[in-house]
Amino acid sequence: MSSARVLDSLFFPKSVAVVGASANPAGWGGTSFLQRLIKRGFSGKLYPVNPKSTEVEGLKCYPNVQSIPEIPDHVIISTPAIAVPQILRDCVTANVKNVHIFSSGFSETGEEDGKKLDEEITAIIKNSDLRVVGPNCMGIWVSASKLCAWGAEPKGLGSVAFLSQSGGHGEYISELGQSLGVYFSKIISFGNAKGLQAYDFLEYLETDPDTKIIACYFEGMRDGNRVTQLIRRINRTKPVLVWKGGLTASGAQAVSSHTGSLAGEERIWKAFYAQTGAVPVGSLDEVIDTAMAFLYLRPAAGKRTLLMGGGGGNSVALADICGREGLEVPWITDATRQEMNKFIRLAGNSTRNPLDIWSVQDNPDDFKKAFDLGLADPNIDVAVMEKQIMWDSDEPEHIERHKKADGVHIEYCKNNTSGKPIVVAATSMANMEGPSAYRAQLLTRFVTSGIPAYSSTVSAARALSRFVAYHEFQSKNN
Amino acid sequence: MSSARVLDSLFFPKSVAVVGASANPAGWGGTSFLQRLIKRGFSGKLYPVNPKSTEVEGLKCYPNVQSIPEIPDHVIISTPAIAVPQILRDCVTANVKNVHIFSSGFSETGEEDGKKLDEEITAIIKNSDLRVVGPNCMGIWVSASKLCAWGAEPKGLGSVAFLSQSGGHGEYISELGQSLGVYFSKIISFGNAKGLQAYDFLEYLETDPDTKIIACYFEGMRDGNRVTQLIRRINRTKPVLVWKGGLTASGAQAVSSHTGSLAGEERIWKAFYAQTGAVPVGSLDEVIDTAMAFLYLRPAAGKRTLLMGGGGGNSVALADICGREGLEVPWITDATRQEMNKFIRLAGNSTRNPLDIWSVQDNPDDFKKAFDLGLADPNIDVAVMEKQIMWDSDEPEHIERHKKADGVHIEYCKNNTSGKPIVVAATSMANMEGPSAYRAQLLTRFVTSGIPAYSSTVSAARALSRFVAYHEFQSKNN
Repeated sequence: MSSARVLDSLFFPKSVAVVGASANPAGWGGTSFLQRLIKRGFSGKLYPVNPKSTEVEGLKCYPNVQSIPEIPDHVIISTPAIAVPQILRDCVTANVKNVHIFSSGFSETGEEDGKKLDEEITAIIKNSDLRVVGPNCMGIWVSASKLCAWGAEPKGLGSVAFLSQSGGHGEYISELGQSLGVYFSKIISFGNAKGLQAYDFLEYLETDPDTKIIACYFEGMRDGNRVTQLIRRINRTKPVLVWKGGLTASGAQAVSSHTGSLAGEERIWKAFYAQTGAVPVGSLDEVIDTAMAFLYLRPAAGKRTLLMGGGGGNSVALADICGREGLEVPWITDATRQEMNKFIRLAGNSTRNPLDIWSVQDNPDDFKKAFDLGLADPNIDVAVMEKQIMWDSDEPEHIERHKKADGVHIEYCKNNTSGKPIVVAATSMANMEGPSAYRAQLLTRFVTSGIPAYSSTVSAARALSRFVAYHEFQSKNN
Repeated sequence: MSSARVLDSLFFPKSVAVVGASANPAGWGGTSFLQRLIKRGFSGKLYPVNPKSTEVEGLKCYPNVQSIPEIPDHVIISTPAIAVPQILRDCVTANVKNVHIFSSGFSETGEEDGKKLDEEITAIIKNSDLRVVGPNCMGIWVSASKLCAWGAEPKGLGSVAFLSQSGGHGEYISELGQSLGVYFSKIISFGNAKGLQAYDFLEYLETDPDTKIIACYFEGMRDGNRVTQLIRRINRTKPVLVWKGGLTASGAQAVSSHTGSLAGEERIWKAFYAQTGAVPVGSLDEVIDTAMAFLYLRPAAGKRTLLMGGGGGNSVALADICGREGLEVPWITDATRQEMNKFIRLAGNSTRNPLDIWSVQDNPDDFKKAFDLGLADPNIDVAVMEKQIMWDSDEPEHIERHKKADGVHIEYCKNNTSGKPIVVAATSMANMEGPSAYRAQLLTRFVTSGIPAYSSTVSAARALSRFVAYHEFQSKNN
């Protein structure tokens, strides 16, 4: 077993102890962890630990970790911060290796009491073999082992790992990603990082056969050089998406209240991205948007983008969006244009690029012919298809018509043999319940067909641009 | 009547002739204009004009403009481009003043034929008293007169005017705006601008009693100095929002295919914004988002923002968004914080700013108390409240619970007596039909209560920041 694989027992434990579970829970805490593991069907043994209870959720409860009849593979600590040092010492005594400290109230509070407790647990961890996740974090969520530290139900086995200093981000992304067909191998919330560090998890994920794409949310970073070299290396074979929280002055101040990390300066992080080729992302949505491109698209030859939208002003808007996001929107060649002009009339349409060809929008054959021609053009590497969700998408007769037209476009993208990636932007024209629901459904239809689909053209262009830039970096630097 | 008010007959005509309406319409065109005017209840007289029909939509059809028994106040030309010069000459003969040329196929095609026709109509217009809107545009849409060049139904009389070189933008924004409670006085699509120019419309809107906020979409600009001085002047009393299409190289190329305008360089437009104090916007959504702030908010003293969200990582994200959008997120004072800490526990919460106070989120009294304290803090000028739409918002029992909690927040914002503006961001955590529909409904509930509400924190922060910057500019420069 390589040193990194030693963490397998953290992610796939055969037994889990939950310290702080209680027969009379006062609010959210250890009992919730226990309940979720039961609800999600975690198949290993579960041991509630609490000196004040004898049974929790129908399971025998132990007064402390040492009294459990086996050494649990994974211990979750969910107690007030003040109790954590002694529980850690108990874990050392019981020869426990993997510990997740959910408890908060350490250095992140900025108060003296919290800082002292922080020093105390840091010393215990340092002088032991404990592999500690946290404190002040949600812990581990693994689709395959059903080790679910939070409520989200694993709905599929996926190849995306998310490594996050924030537990909220982990929880939200598990729901967001799965709702868009992006499934996870592991999600790791590691909070204040007083034990296991980002590089420990990254080394594990580097050789993890279940993980093909790694996304990270960092607030601070210890051993920056080590992490930078590591990400540079991993990124060659597994794209690494990195979201740095706290890049603005306001954000940096918020970081200090959250995980107590020291947020680095913007220029340091610019250098990090330039050296590693890691894919920069800036929100949970962007993590999922970008992961979708990496999951579904074959590498593109360049960033010259065919835009298929509709409307003259809208074509300008689409081109500006692509320009701002780092893509190029060149005119297609005269030869291609002349072919298109044989069946698309000039007035009110434009066949240069963006393609503004509403006169054939409802004609599946002409639509296909035009898009085929555009994709085959030598000036084109990739394509963005904008689908405008109309405000009549809550009237039954229109819904059926739109669904049919959308079906044609989905089939077209699925059967795309041009070798040039297509992404879809489903943009909304109005704030209405019907069309909003329709869009959610349409995005699902696209992504479950393996076509990256986004709720705005900005998102689509941004994800595509980052995907193209990743491959450009790799081909230049490796 | 001031010279600008002469355009009243364009916007409030007593009679409209539609040249190109037909008893046997071949697709979309003049007949559609006629049908829409009838459908929307335009109360003036309607005259179809077509030498090949005797009756259209039950109305007597005239062979040409001269044969109409009165001088129509407004003539819509919807014929092939080749026929337009003669029709314009007919209008001159008939002493018509206001003409909207819907027809396209002029210089914007880039073809020789189109350019020649362009020169021909430009000469006719120049040597006449014709006031021409277009060509290659959708024309005029007026809530009060029901002069609706496109299908959108006017649902309310509003004070926002939208002046656009793109007809598609005009059409979309009428639907988008109204779906968010933003109503219009007038929407003007003026396309290739061979007759009436941006400044003509701006001068009219400057003294238009129905218009309080003016938004513009420009692709190019003739008489830049005149427009710049005009906008600087108007902007003092009526906020002017300006979206410039074609600022990127890709966008500029798309502009040339659309209205044939020469897109200016970015630095020229930077100077324009710096000189005029016009509010920069970059999409239809941003026009509506920003208009909403101007419609509902009282001027703020500054940009120091209280953030009310939830979640540690999310608080960092919110602060970074505000920082990037030009707002500041200072910590609140120790005095305020000590007051909050009396009823908000330290562990897992943060009472600095952003307020991450999930422990009182479901307690209306404590929520109100915390927000009151935050708003009253001397470090705070404005507030952004983030409402996360949960993924359980499609389960009936949860919907009711969320609706109730949301109701508390709506009431709170409505009764905000702090004098400090609050805007709301309703952010989605998943791509699901139920929650998507729920969000659309929630945004409607907020905006119909007079509270600016946005579908992302980026949109909320951006609109708020521009609103604050507008007032800062005005107080410095006037």
